[in-house]
Amino acid sequence: MKALVYKGPGQKSWEDVPDPVIQHPTDVIVRMEATTICGTDLHILKGDVAAVEAGRVLGHEGIGVITEVGSGITQLAVGDRVILSCISACGLCSNCRQGLYSHCLNPEGAEGIGWIFGHLIDGTQAELVRVPFAENSVYKVPEGVSDAEGILLSDILPTGFEIGVQYGQVKPGDVVAVIGSGPVGLAAVMTARLYGPSRVVAIDLDDARLARAREFGATDTVNSGADDWKEKVLATTDGLGVDVAIEAVGIPGTFTMATELARPGGHVANVGVHGRGVELALDRLWISNIDISMGLVNTNTLGMLLKLVAAKKLPADKFVTHTFTFDQVLEAYEVFGHAAEHDALKVLIRR
Amino acid sequence: MKALVYKGPGQKSWEDVPDPVIQHPTDVIVRMEATTICGTDLHILKGDVAAVEAGRVLGHEGIGVITEVGSGITQLAVGDRVILSCISACGLCSNCRQGLYSHCLNPEGAEGIGWIFGHLIDGTQAELVRVPFAENSVYKVPEGVSDAEGILLSDILPTGFEIGVQYGQVKPGDVVAVIGSGPVGLAAVMTARLYGPSRVVAIDLDDARLARAREFGATDTVNSGADDWKEKVLATTDGLGVDVAIEAVGIPGTFTMATELARPGGHVANVGVHGRGVELALDRLWISNIDISMGLVNTNTLGMLLKLVAAKKLPADKFVTHTFTFDQVLEAYEVFGHAAEHDALKVLIRR
Repeated sequence: MKALVYKGPGQKSWEDVPDPVIQHPTDVIVRMEATTICGTDLHILKGDVAAVEAGRVLGHEGIGVITEVGSGITQLAVGDRVILSCISACGLCSNCRQGLYSHCLNPEGAEGIGWIFGHLIDGTQAELVRVPFAENSVYKVPEGVSDAEGILLSDILPTGFEIGVQYGQVKPGDVVAVIGSGPVGLAAVMTARLYGPSRVVAIDLDDARLARAREFGATDTVNSGADDWKEKVLATTDGLGVDVAIEAVGIPGTFTMATELARPGGHVANVGVHGRGVELALDRLWISNIDISMGLVNTNTLGMLLKLVAAKKLPADKFVTHTFTFDQVLEAYEVFGHAAEHDALKVLIRR
Repeated sequence: MKALVYKGPGQKSWEDVPDPVIQHPTDVIVRMEATTICGTDLHILKGDVAAVEAGRVLGHEGIGVITEVGSGITQLAVGDRVILSCISACGLCSNCRQGLYSHCLNPEGAEGIGWIFGHLIDGTQAELVRVPFAENSVYKVPEGVSDAEGILLSDILPTGFEIGVQYGQVKPGDVVAVIGSGPVGLAAVMTARLYGPSRVVAIDLDDARLARAREFGATDTVNSGADDWKEKVLATTDGLGVDVAIEAVGIPGTFTMATELARPGGHVANVGVHGRGVELALDRLWISNIDISMGLVNTNTLGMLLKLVAAKKLPADKFVTHTFTFDQVLEAYEVFGHAAEHDALKVLIRR
């Protein structure tokens, strides 16, 4: 089969590799209909993720059709069209049994490392993929859900929803600020409305991204390049701060912004992936009665979000701005790697 | 009347001051039966709390009998024996109406500053005290509750319980680590058991304090001076970390300890009052699915804890190691200020 192979820092290739085979009774093989590229893949390509070895097939998002099932599979069958969760989870360890799939303790689960597709095992930017713990890690796709809708459920939509909206405890009437209008920030903007907030304020440095945030459901936008950005955000509240501040960038400055925006008794939900530590002003915040959450997506809401997508209540396909075929995958990387230039959000790469 | 007056950094005096008078319809005057000293009072005396002016009567904990009521008081009467909450809260502003009394928005409430007794208005280390918003800020004492039991409910027990145990989301079966075995840490140790944890691990540098923590309900103790302190704590768990790590010291090192002990999916509850910021290792923790809470006590559980004390289910009087009379208050400060030397925990100062 063909696959997108990481060849070491800065190098990748769409090339022939051996077809994957069933290794465990709980595996299935999926023929991919579509995959996409995540910011994490770009980090890996830069050489920032030491655990990824040269020769690894990249990608952790995908939708496809099962072509082979392991001997232990009873609930899935050849021909089933499924969405692959970015998180592989055994479903049986103590963490999985509480829904903490991102910390599956099984050696072929997240193993405390978080995710393994395109990281510790071969990933989804390929014609065929071996899926471990398939019965707990794929979701059958209902009729009428397109590839462009389904692909967002592998990672982006559950991440914005679980780690931003749910960990941030968004509730009816809240003013929610979302810092960063990239794909994950927009996923938080889009899914926040499931809990009935009064306002969703998108904050970003780029007016084009802010305009898009309005299309995704933001009621207000604030360009954080302005000196008075904080006053502008507070003006959307009663003056005391936002109920929930969602950080979807992953740098110290935006984390600090979130802690400065949350009202007493409010919530800070960190969604961003951080490469370094941050300063937490506990001398000011100890008295604030806020909490600060963080984490990797469990995708335990994937099935629920899929129902909403199937019912056309969540327009997930809005994220897909560009479509390519598998043999154009290098071009897809070029576009996604220069997203601002191409006004790109998510790229769909299909068979 | 006599009162303990702050005279500027390093100076205090037990001296005659004018009796307090009713200023607002919602005030009452209380003749104090007993008060105590908090670590905060020592900070104020060092000159660390700029908002406290020379001439201020100190103290924010107390129990006494109402001698006069304002014209708006309907639920309290002269002769009622009451516990004074350390938090003055109007009960009517938007924060109070959600139980966030520590952020009462009224100018004579916590006003976003937290507490006002012995801070912005005259406090409880006095023969008489004016209590603002009395109907929302005092609790009638049931028969059979002693001064030594009741005094702990003004601040210490609710603080350990609300900001440590409740914000930390302690649940049945949890392993709970409490860092710091001072009064507030011990309050968390004592009240954690209300939610049925499997183990409560007290952590401190002082073996004498750890021995006391066992008397307060700790099932395990670890001296954090040992090189292998972390391994010892993890040995009380399944190896993955504690479910809840409660920080009850207020320095960067103990905050970091708490973040290192919490298991994936666990909770860090900061109770300590911090004088400077801390480094938060978000590069390591973003993936951990923990949350970090913090805040000032609301005392919205005071009434509930009082019921448990009255039912002899919480031995609150265990905290009181030394008893003085009002005219010995300077001696009480001497003992409390050198608590380790005197093996002191809380001092009761009574009429």
